[in-house]
Amino acid sequence: MYYYKEELINQIVPDQPDPAAAKVLQEILGGHFGEMRTMMQYFFQSSNFRGKETQFRDLLRGVFLEEIAHVELVQNTINQLLNGSGESSAPGNAGVDGAPLNDAIKHANPHHFIIGAQASLPVDAAGNPWNGSWVYSHGNLIGDLLDNLVLESTGVLQKTRIYEMSSNKTFRETLAFLIVRDNSHQNAFAKALETLGVQWGKLFPVPNYDINKYPECKKYIDMGYHNSTFNFRLDPTRIAEIINGTSPSRNGGTMTVTDPPAGFPVPLMPEMPNEHSPGLSDMQS
Amino acid sequence: MYYYKEELINQIVPDQPDPAAAKVLQEILGGHFGEMRTMMQYFFQSSNFRGKETQFRDLLRGVFLEEIAHVELVQNTINQLLNGSGESSAPGNAGVDGAPLNDAIKHANPHHFIIGAQASLPVDAAGNPWNGSWVYSHGNLIGDLLDNLVLESTGVLQKTRIYEMSSNKTFRETLAFLIVRDNSHQNAFAKALETLGVQWGKLFPVPNYDINKYPECKKYIDMGYHNSTFNFRLDPTRIAEIINGTSPSRNGGTMTVTDPPAGFPVPLMPEMPNEHSPGLSDMQS
Amino acid sequence: MYYYKEELINQIVPDQPDPAAAKVLQEILGGHFGEMRTMMQYFFQSSNFRGKETQFRDLLRGVFLEEIAHVELVQNTINQLLNGSGESSAPGNAGVDGAPLNDAIKHANPHHFIIGAQASLPVDAAGNPWNGSWVYSHGNLIGDLLDNLVLESTGVLQKTRIYEMSSNKTFRETLAFLIVRDNSHQNAFAKALETLGVQWGKLFPVPNYDINKYPECKKYIDMGYHNSTFNFRLDPTRIAEIINGTSPSRNGGTMTVTDPPAGFPVPLMPEMPNEHSPGLSDMQS
Amino acid sequence: MYYYKEELINQIVPDQPDPAAAKVLQEILGGHFGEMRTMMQYFFQSSNFRGKETQFRDLLRGVFLEEIAHVELVQNTINQLLNGSGESSAPGNAGVDGAPLNDAIKHANPHHFIIGAQASLPVDAAGNPWNGSWVYSHGNLIGDLLDNLVLESTGVLQKTRIYEMSSNKTFRETLAFLIVRDNSHQNAFAKALETLGVQWGKLFPVPNYDINKYPECKKYIDMGYHNSTFNFRLDPTRIAEIINGTSPSRNGGTMTVTDPPAGFPVPLMPEMPNEHSPGLSDMQS
Amino acid sequence: MYYYKEELINQIVPDQPDPAAAKVLQEILGGHFGEMRTMMQYFFQSSNFRGKETQFRDLLRGVFLEEIAHVELVQNTINQLLNGSGESSAPGNAGVDGAPLNDAIKHANPHHFIIGAQASLPVDAAGNPWNGSWVYSHGNLIGDLLDNLVLESTGVLQKTRIYEMSSNKTFRETLAFLIVRDNSHQNAFAKALETLGVQWGKLFPVPNYDINKYPECKKYIDMGYHNSTFNFRLDPTRIAEIINGTSPSRNGGTMTVTDPPAGFPVPLMPEMPNEHSPGLSDMQS
Amino acid sequence: MYYYKEELINQIVPDQPDPAAAKVLQEILGGHFGEMRTMMQYFFQSSNFRGKETQFRDLLRGVFLEEIAHVELVQNTINQLLNGSGESSAPGNAGVDGAPLNDAIKHANPHHFIIGAQASLPVDAAGNPWNGSWVYSHGNLIGDLLDNLVLESTGVLQKTRIYEMSSNKTFRETLAFLIVRDNSHQNAFAKALETLGVQWGKLFPVPNYDINKYPECKKYIDMGYHNSTFNFRLDPTRIAEIINGTSPSRNGGTMTVTDPPAGFPVPLMPEMPNEHSPGLSDMQS
Repeated sequence: MYYYKEELINQIVPDQPDPAAAKVLQEILGGHFGEMRTMMQYFFQSSNFRGKETQFRDLLRGVFLEEIAHVELVQNTINQLLNGSGESSAPGNAGVDGAPLNDAIKHANPHHFIIGAQASLPVDAAGNPWNGSWVYSHGNLIGDLLDNLVLESTGVLQKTRIYEMSSNKTFRETLAFLIVRDNSHQNAFAKALETLGVQWGKLFPVPNYDINKYPECKKYIDMGYHNSTFNFRLDPTRIAEIINGTSPSRNGGTMTVTDPPAGFPVPLMPEMPNEHSPGLSDMQS
Repeated sequence: MYYYKEELINQIVPDQPDPAAAKVLQEILGGHFGEMRTMMQYFFQSSNFRGKETQFRDLLRGVFLEEIAHVELVQNTINQLLNGSGESSAPGNAGVDGAPLNDAIKHANPHHFIIGAQASLPVDAAGNPWNGSWVYSHGNLIGDLLDNLVLESTGVLQKTRIYEMSSNKTFRETLAFLIVRDNSHQNAFAKALETLGVQWGKLFPVPNYDINKYPECKKYIDMGYHNSTFNFRLDPTRIAEIINGTSPSRNGGTMTVTDPPAGFPVPLMPEMPNEHSPGLSDMQS
Repeated sequence: MYYYKEELINQIVPDQPDPAAAKVLQEILGGHFGEMRTMMQYFFQSSNFRGKETQFRDLLRGVFLEEIAHVELVQNTINQLLNGSGESSAPGNAGVDGAPLNDAIKHANPHHFIIGAQASLPVDAAGNPWNGSWVYSHGNLIGDLLDNLVLESTGVLQKTRIYEMSSNKTFRETLAFLIVRDNSHQNAFAKALETLGVQWGKLFPVPNYDINKYPECKKYIDMGYHNSTFNFRLDPTRIAEIINGTSPSRNGGTMTVTDPPAGFPVPLMPEMPNEHSPGLSDMQS
Repeated sequence: MYYYKEELINQIVPDQPDPAAAKVLQEILGGHFGEMRTMMQYFFQSSNFRGKETQFRDLLRGVFLEEIAHVELVQNTINQLLNGSGESSAPGNAGVDGAPLNDAIKHANPHHFIIGAQASLPVDAAGNPWNGSWVYSHGNLIGDLLDNLVLESTGVLQKTRIYEMSSNKTFRETLAFLIVRDNSHQNAFAKALETLGVQWGKLFPVPNYDINKYPECKKYIDMGYHNSTFNFRLDPTRIAEIINGTSPSRNGGTMTVTDPPAGFPVPLMPEMPNEHSPGLSDMQS
Repeated sequence: MYYYKEELINQIVPDQPDPAAAKVLQEILGGHFGEMRTMMQYFFQSSNFRGKETQFRDLLRGVFLEEIAHVELVQNTINQLLNGSGESSAPGNAGVDGAPLNDAIKHANPHHFIIGAQASLPVDAAGNPWNGSWVYSHGNLIGDLLDNLVLESTGVLQKTRIYEMSSNKTFRETLAFLIVRDNSHQNAFAKALETLGVQWGKLFPVPNYDINKYPECKKYIDMGYHNSTFNFRLDPTRIAEIINGTSPSRNGGTMTVTDPPAGFPVPLMPEMPNEHSPGLSDMQS
Repeated sequence: MYYYKEELINQIVPDQPDPAAAKVLQEILGGHFGEMRTMMQYFFQSSNFRGKETQFRDLLRGVFLEEIAHVELVQNTINQLLNGSGESSAPGNAGVDGAPLNDAIKHANPHHFIIGAQASLPVDAAGNPWNGSWVYSHGNLIGDLLDNLVLESTGVLQKTRIYEMSSNKTFRETLAFLIVRDNSHQNAFAKALETLGVQWGKLFPVPNYDINKYPECKKYIDMGYHNSTFNFRLDPTRIAEIINGTSPSRNGGTMTVTDPPAGFPVPLMPEMPNEHSPGLSDMQS
């Protein structure tokens, strides 16, 4: 069973609204290689696990637990980027009267302004809904681990590409944190294959990014987040049988199992009367 | 953030393998009104919540937390129904040689035997993958609560229909537990609308089922599971501001916030060398 | 605007329940070349029509109007095939207790017994939901007419193939009626292209079926249904500018615009308390 | 069977072309909660109805009939917004030569200019095709009515959000008419549940919008369109057994069954030789 | 079996990057009537062919072979339009710092910049993935040929519409070549139906475009590409039994089977270190 | 450009019709990890390749070329399994009259008997259409190679599972050939990563199957097909820069570039007049 403390796994850094950035960030939430996929893929792989080598099941489930918190972090980041973006006082929106269509909305996913009240959705950057056929639980452990390596490597790759699309601080901080954590999960799955005899040479990290290009990443590297596996279990776990010793990354370092971050406040979002959200004002009078 | 204790929210009652039952049970996992939908819908609704009336956000998030455990319960139930079903020693499978196709597989979802090693999938009873367009987070709280009422009512409705399809005990026990819990969530969302002024009369439960038709349900009713809301929070919650007093159901009773069930062991599934699962034997020699 | 008289366009011939036949008949309702597609395709083509040659718009809209009645006919036929099929007293269902899964359901679309109360669905014979990307309104009239010819030809082709799958009378009567009407629409669109200069030779009907193989068709041919276009307009229409003279079919005959059939009663379906349908019994006490 | 008179249910108010507005208006046509969904959902619910309380079937079918006319109205509104928008003489299109891409098309759904000749499509505002899995016919009448309430409430909610996106008069007039009619259908389904014992208090309308924000709505309210149910039947209907007495809305008023509006001309759209639509010029010479 | 010579079937004319043009050109690659559909449709039709009239199978397979080269041509054209488009030195991109989102990306398919390194995708102009349900292999030869005629006619129709969207030379040259080749395939399938007795009159080409509007087409017409069928077989083919004599087009001319074009170099695309493509630099040190 | 010689890459071994086997074999054609996916994935990866290390592009394109022949082989195998299966004289089909539904069809994909004339389809074993979102071309070469390793490993894994489902010789021979070729491609991509520094230890083959369980595989192993890369190029290729030396598999051996197999006849399928295929009989009289 799953227990919750109302804390985000990372901070939401304030900045201006940016609905075009919110649109592309949806890839990280509901895309083929986004956090919903990683969350559901590891959930199915851990529930469907066979055999007694449960240190692997503990690893799969451990990463699954963190991915739920990642989904929540990206939902909150998208919401922060959308908050206030549709108001006529927002930058670039010189009033809708007479204009063909609100400028903010023109470059946004229109569903952000139609389906919810300027809020996150289970879709990708092109507006396609998340699809269960993307989740793979092969049954064969090596197949599962290789697939997860592809998933985490693509996670870093796409996040570094998306990072370049906006200099918005809310946007970049979340991406930077997730780049480092994907890196950590890449190391974890690579290490699991190392215990089965693979020697990776200089292959990882994939992609082989220059940390200086993503300055927000540095503090997380300094905290060792690229080599630590957070432990969200309230009972014992065998995860340290895999996560220990030297990292399989060319960047080296020692792999450790640690407590999760201290936790950051979950934002309380303002009402949007114009969007009828939450729309209770007259109900309770 | 999300914490985990390796315990199922209900028991897995042992019985014979039954892949045809596993196929229809997929509706409860990955169908339009299944547990993956309820889990993701309440996740988005709670993360996207606006305004200060956070007792509603706590309610949405609280039910979300239980739904993660429901997904895990249904995954494990499907796995139990599939375990051993493809073996030539399984009932009705008199060896595959010379036969057109293994009989067990003929009435199964073939993906249960191809994609994973006889294991659960994110698809519905007709084999369609789970789709993100089913999740709705309207932004307007009344819209969200009414949609959730439809979701929980349909949950009970479909589970009572599926219950009739097999007398397998593994199958029926999980359905019975979930029928009662959907009933509890129906009561919770109906109660939330009652705080906004609605009087439901005799409308609930929907459907108005006869408890005697589903005998496995009775023990859960006797434990009060139809009126209790389980609390999975490790920090304070305002949920009791809504969940209290008389149930909106015609069956009456008092609504309470309680601890979750004591927890049941997560099954350790046998290896399936024939399916190459987990396929480690020679790796580690 | 659209007006309605509660009458089916053809009779529902009674026979035994046959859920496996209901499953394949879904192709005719919700398949790529089924009645929902024809209905929506002609609806979009007529609303999107450009230019003054409105005799073509009247033709497109006229066939659209009949297709709504076809959708209703197939929904009712599927319902008739499902009525009573899940009951333990139905043929071949020797009680579900102890059996792995109700035999009727094994060869059915399980959604017929889960989503509705043994009722029609907007899906195809393989259980895939109807998809808007199948509808085509090209804007170019010749493109639209050629596409419609493919649609009607495939309609006949698939119906003759499905006809062979069961000798159930409910099933075959509806198929036979629709084969003849698709033939009529094929003739209508072929004739429209004839007015633009094409000479079809012996090409039509496609496929070139032997009427004796589908005996239920004969009475409709005798009534001239293969060459008549039903007129559902309450105001004038230019449709007779196209529909007149010799049929483009090798079977010959004269094309005419006629009144629709006299109409047949819409069945009143029995309650299914076991399926909680309609589930009102205690509500109104 | 279905009969037709070539009249729109509401007027198309002329204004400038606005392809960006046409793109978002597609949500109302082909979106998850759009008019195609309502049309098909009530069609399946009425054809699949069980039992003798046919006043409910008459209600479901009655609203279905109006929804066909709504689909036609939105198709025509989108077409009006697109007409002329791609021409080099359209506002903001200073000739395509040398420019990267026609500006009108940049903020449009490109399919409006590729698939048809600047015409409506069965897709939503994000370009996803309409999907049959959205239609729900639960079999249980209370489930159906609650689902329909969510559908109509979301209809109003989304239309009020889309209304703010453009001040184009063609766009706003159609939205205003449909907001009031969705409100009427919300009242109708709420009333049907009232006959089963529910007291709604101040819950409706959902969302609780301020009529002054949508001035085009006022004339329709003055005509009582929010409380009237249009009757499109050519034979008797039991609909007045439900639709009578006080409205369940906090805005009060008396519910009545009335004749449909007088009817407005269906536009005759100009040819677009550049788009090869209809493309007949040389055929007939 | 399939053999390859590294040559494109037509030239890639250099011009400026234009990601908005790349987005709409995706329709020609991965759309409902795009080159992936034609390629796969003729592949299935030729493999599924029945009977001894193998001149038709040879025709279907022959066009299939050319369509593989068309897919490759469009992939390379899209890549050329994307190359360098995301760089801060690209036209209109005044550096991303401080700006909400890179302008190039705003009007692009964001997946072009996220999923690959500015490269082609199997999706349409609205970002929907290619779907296997679009492919049709009816089994009935006349049905197949009519469907293919619709496919090729719509191919020309959509390409002439897309042609108007940008004056980019890379974009227009590929469209012009494909317009003429679709025309040739339209003639080929029309001719095949002519051998079965149809007289087309003045119906073709569909649409009846004015060659002067698409000046890049002229040289291909002058080379007779609209009436020639390229032969990619390394063994004998019966295709000339169909492809001979007068073209069924109103434009006349003689149909011939010829060698394919001489071939053009496949571009070697530059590395994109910023996109981690190919990302090998440090691997090999 | 692509050239063709009408030869299959492997033999079609004759055996009884088996439509249930044809249904599951669709996974290998149109499934998430089937031959259509591998074909299109390597096509996009090779066309989108960046940089001068074109030995990798030659490898990707080389495997793509073989995959086209694999698609053709599986299409022909499915057709062979379906040929004659729907006839009343087929095993187990004692005439359809009076029976609810033809028994062969009950356990088949009904689309095999409706859409085509008993012929292959672009769908998976559960009837879901092939989807473009499954294809991945990451741009980053290591990402692409790892993804391809997962693809080929899953290919072997699923084929060994499907192999167990029927002892039909047509079915097993094609699976056995493809298992060995997937193994060869797994070795090729693993070798490519070896050139970048990875040491695989005993990891491959994945899964680690016992060759004696799949006796049809042995002859292909004896011919060295597990370590050879077939060369379909008519011009030079750099593929041997990667494919040489010791195999990365624990089974050892030397990797070589060889000519393709000698080629086997493409079957000429019988007419099916009952299915109107090809339906030409009266056309040409």
